[in-house]
Amino acid sequence: MAPDVLRVAAVESGVRVLRPGAGSRARALAAGAGDVSNVCVCGAGTLGTQVALQIAISGFNVSVLDVTDAALDKCRASHETLLQQYVAREQAGDQARAWKGLASSDKPASEVAAQTLGRLSYTTDAAEAASSCDLVSENVPEVPEIKAATYANLSKHAPEHAIFTSNSSTLLPSTFADKTGRPEKFCALHFANGIWDANIGEVMPHPGTDPAVTRAVMKFAGDIGMVPFLLNKEHNGYLINALLVPWLAASLTLVQKGVSEPRDVDRAWLICQKAFTAPPGAVMGPFQTMDMIGLPLVSGVMDYWGEQLKDEQMTANGVFVKEQYIDRNKLGIMNGDPTKDAAEGFYTYPNPEFLQKEFLS
Amino acid sequence: MAPDVLRVAAVESGVRVLRPGAGSRARALAAGAGDVSNVCVCGAGTLGTQVALQIAISGFNVSVLDVTDAALDKCRASHETLLQQYVAREQAGDQARAWKGLASSDKPASEVAAQTLGRLSYTTDAAEAASSCDLVSENVPEVPEIKAATYANLSKHAPEHAIFTSNSSTLLPSTFADKTGRPEKFCALHFANGIWDANIGEVMPHPGTDPAVTRAVMKFAGDIGMVPFLLNKEHNGYLINALLVPWLAASLTLVQKGVSEPRDVDRAWLICQKAFTAPPGAVMGPFQTMDMIGLPLVSGVMDYWGEQLKDEQMTANGVFVKEQYIDRNKLGIMNGDPTKDAAEGFYTYPNPEFLQKEFLS
Repeated sequence: MAPDVLRVAAVESGVRVLRPGAGSRARALAAGAGDVSNVCVCGAGTLGTQVALQIAISGFNVSVLDVTDAALDKCRASHETLLQQYVAREQAGDQARAWKGLASSDKPASEVAAQTLGRLSYTTDAAEAASSCDLVSENVPEVPEIKAATYANLSKHAPEHAIFTSNSSTLLPSTFADKTGRPEKFCALHFANGIWDANIGEVMPHPGTDPAVTRAVMKFAGDIGMVPFLLNKEHNGYLINALLVPWLAASLTLVQKGVSEPRDVDRAWLICQKAFTAPPGAVMGPFQTMDMIGLPLVSGVMDYWGEQLKDEQMTANGVFVKEQYIDRNKLGIMNGDPTKDAAEGFYTYPNPEFLQKEFLS
Repeated sequence: MAPDVLRVAAVESGVRVLRPGAGSRARALAAGAGDVSNVCVCGAGTLGTQVALQIAISGFNVSVLDVTDAALDKCRASHETLLQQYVAREQAGDQARAWKGLASSDKPASEVAAQTLGRLSYTTDAAEAASSCDLVSENVPEVPEIKAATYANLSKHAPEHAIFTSNSSTLLPSTFADKTGRPEKFCALHFANGIWDANIGEVMPHPGTDPAVTRAVMKFAGDIGMVPFLLNKEHNGYLINALLVPWLAASLTLVQKGVSEPRDVDRAWLICQKAFTAPPGAVMGPFQTMDMIGLPLVSGVMDYWGEQLKDEQMTANGVFVKEQYIDRNKLGIMNGDPTKDAAEGFYTYPNPEFLQKEFLS
């Protein structure tokens, strides 16, 4: 079934043992993470292929479902290649590129790879894929009709207790909730491309999702090595794309309008990003950045741009910062030293949460 | 005049010699950068204070003009404090925090600091500040009436050949061009807060600016240690704020609407930023990011969001990427290895320009 990987496994000797890590992954590997043992990954495209592998490598049985054998063959070949890369990464001692989802394994990579392949199956038969699953991850194309038909089909075969999750990037779960036949057991669980490095799991319920289901999906996301993020409401783009798309659009606008060139936009951004960081050289998130800028200036800029651009949400953001922070004397750190200066803003200084080692785990 | 700094200078011994650096700054220190020797910095607020110091430390004579002695006293005190920090940074060997604008000095920091103070003067008299200047940097408050009155006053006293530049963050130079009495010798030269670390100089002419003046201001920006960026057209927010404001606004929207919390937005962004980088751990600009994502996906996302949000500029950006890049078979590196894979996108791979050491200089 996986001759290349097994061959890799056979020739391994003295491979490095992965360091012990987060408990949730250790439990997942040991016990199957509570209620979920069998997962159906529907759609074997780029991201579906990654999702299936990440779930399998975390200790769950995975049935990959797609409509053609060609798609499944390609998916299986990708899994074999990716597992070879995983073994090679460990061999090279390349911890910086190690799969975050596997930090807790105490087995040699070659053994993990072989066991992972043993937990993966591939089929074009929806009944076979879904009939014993506890959770579905839907990764089919972003076409409403395809999504609807997929859910209608899966709901016929999956057990009543099975939770359905969508990995849709662009469509909100409420759009399809009724098609699943189990709206209260349905929400989005969205992954980023490069799932083993960008290990976020964005969990977005629709208004009809049972809160217990949302909690179970949050737990499952953690069990497969993702850092789980709960979105309290439906929002286009989840967290990452909601920030990324406006940033990319603004950069394209500069070039599309003939104001600047790609290289200059990148250079200017990089120079300022590298300068405005604490500690120096670190990447900063938007709220860290706003605390450094100072919240009165941020609020003023939102007011100004909101008025200039007739953008009511921008204006609302300015009012929000004023009422929730500035009026409560939370002004940000304003170019102060976050390791030493006392201040309140989105974070509490000195020694804000983002300087703690576990912030990103 | 500057007892604290001079005292610091006196007790210095064995200070580190700064490393030789970019030629433009060396020439500025040696010869006064061509046509510009004397600079009038008008407005001694936070950024005006930084601008004045950076210009003086680069070898130019600077006259700081403000309307009150109190403002000038505060500015002078800030200069002394900042120069003490500059000396202390060098003493600590803290190259990561060394002033980029001074990388080329071969003098001990204490000597540079003392000479810098000797090149600075402070006055409330516009005639004294402007009558012998070659270039003006205007840093007065972002109130149209104040800007207009300032330019009307300065234009009476400054020599005919003097170039006027505005550091306005929010107002376009065309708004004031006529008030300067010399619209063809006027453009924006915009700095970032923390000028010695975030050393960008955004040069934005208005339609009536003489191209020779734009070139002279670009040269001057380089001579004072800034990486100069030419904007071909007027654009709100220049480069950095044009990217930063939509990114910050999108993050605030997530919290203002109750979708997420500041810490979660930052964590999700940081996890993905650290994952989607080449080389690993580096910060990426927006065009590098788009090449990694792949331009077909970027174009598709712009089309989709443009339609969803009824945002014509977003749609135009999607068309731009398709026509200028995708249709010419420039698809980006698409998760490939930029050090090894051949590809075309906004950059040419392998070994794109952004991996070269001089990219940010």
